Amino acid sequence: MRHEDRTPALSTCAVDRWPQDGQTTDLLAAEVPVALEFNGISHAVMLATPQDLEAFALGFALTEGILDTPAQCYGIEVELVHTDSVQGLTVRLEIAAACFQRLKLQRRSLAGNTGCGLCGVESLAALGPPLLAMPRQPWLAALTVDALLRASNALPERQLLNQACGSLHAAAWVSPQGKLLEVMEDVGRHNALDKLLGYRARHNTLQEPGFVLMTSRASHELIRKCVRMGVGAMAAISAPTDFAVDMATRSGLQLWGLVRGQRAVRYTA
Amino acid sequence: MRHEDRTPALSTCAVDRWPQDGQTTDLLAAEVPVALEFNGISHAVMLATPQDLEAFALGFALTEGILDTPAQCYGIEVELVHTDSVQGLTVRLEIAAACFQRLKLQRRSLAGNTGCGLCGVESLAALGPPLLAMPRQPWLAALTVDALLRASNALPERQLLNQACGSLHAAAWVSPQGKLLEVMEDVGRHNALDKLLGYRARHNTLQEPGFVLMTSRASHELIRKCVRMGVGAMAAISAPTDFAVDMATRSGLQLWGLVRGQRAVRYTA
Repeated sequence: MRHEDRTPALSTCAVDRWPQDGQTTDLLAAEVPVALEFNGISHAVMLATPQDLEAFALGFALTEGILDTPAQCYGIEVELVHTDSVQGLTVRLEIAAACFQRLKLQRRSLAGNTGCGLCGVESLAALGPPLLAMPRQPWLAALTVDALLRASNALPERQLLNQACGSLHAAAWVSPQGKLLEVMEDVGRHNALDKLLGYRARHNTLQEPGFVLMTSRASHELIRKCVRMGVGAMAAISAPTDFAVDMATRSGLQLWGLVRGQRAVRYTA
Repeated sequence: MRHEDRTPALSTCAVDRWPQDGQTTDLLAAEVPVALEFNGISHAVMLATPQDLEAFALGFALTEGILDTPAQCYGIEVELVHTDSVQGLTVRLEIAAACFQRLKLQRRSLAGNTGCGLCGVESLAALGPPLLAMPRQPWLAALTVDALLRASNALPERQLLNQACGSLHAAAWVSPQGKLLEVMEDVGRHNALDKLLGYRARHNTLQEPGFVLMTSRASHELIRKCVRMGVGAMAAISAPTDFAVDMATRSGLQLWGLVRGQRAVRYTA
């Protein structure tokens, strides 16, 4: 039995609904603790939508710099896990010895830290050096507002889980002409992006011209993940934060925000 | 000079706007790395809106179980910090020796973990036991949909930062009659809630009848923070996840979702 059959992405719940419906049922987005394990060692637990978890795990490993290339991942298995108080999923990755060694050294240097918010960063000094600027991608000069709006207006009907329960984010890959390709959904916007980047990394299509479209605001972590994977542009339905714009400027990522209806704002060229 | 004067909650940015405006400026939400330090030891860095940071730090310490009562915090200072690559804020809390001792022991037991997503939780087993059920608060039986909708419809005009730049969450405290009291804003929904709970804890008003209203979806961490502080009800503008409903049911928190316009859904009584 596949884990998706036992941990579906939606669940039902008895509710009381106003104004008129009274007692009825509602569909909810599942939010499941997902533990990532590298070569048998637990690394992190995140709350995620239990769908496309192999892509999620590979994407996380790449965007967080645990792996440099998808080929350094030899296998991914997803397993249902019960503890006394919680049901979750463990995703086990088998990774290259050199990457595992580096991860162990990183973890040792973090000994004693609990970490929160920034994945194990416990002090400002540990935020690390800024990202390097990406080489300019020639196709970006031809990206039009029309293409952006075509994609953002077509996105809602591709968000199948969100249509059902209304509380999920989506990350989409869009061609330079504004055609929506893959769409990944998750209760967490970072997870949705990791799923998308992991999927394309696995299929070796990250180098093709195209950009990332997010249903959320553009926060700095999303920019960081895109830059790490060499993505040249990101568009968000909501606004960016100032830190996101700063990071996009320094790394040469073309950043768009408030892309919806007939409007769009370009924050960095 | 107060840190708010040097790290304002909004910043301006030159942008290109479509369809007609062309080059102009836009207001952005500031997203600043904020490091929390307890008795001189760095604990965590989060990205937050640099406003109401004393309330945020106290709220975080309480909702994450570092402190049991506000009286265990002897002082809070906010300081601007520069590193080579980043400008951030450090919030230094002076806490009771017993709490600090407990925190050090917890941290030691986490040695070697990087932690991500669930604040230092590295494996499913470490998610810990479920929360205890709260005693039932008598005023909750009289909470009406009218009161909820009055509050949610009045909230947008109290979200001053969000009105300016459109990418912030808010957490509000609402009286049983639907009157909005404090409203806290942040780029992170957890941070907004920590600010609100920290503010009320400091003013010793958390025990008064009333509930929390969130502009976000209701995720399990928000429920957990409310339950830890003895808050009897939470209402969210968006939908809850299934894990949130499960946690609300088990801990006896009355949970409302999709509270907007003329509609509301009650997920747990």
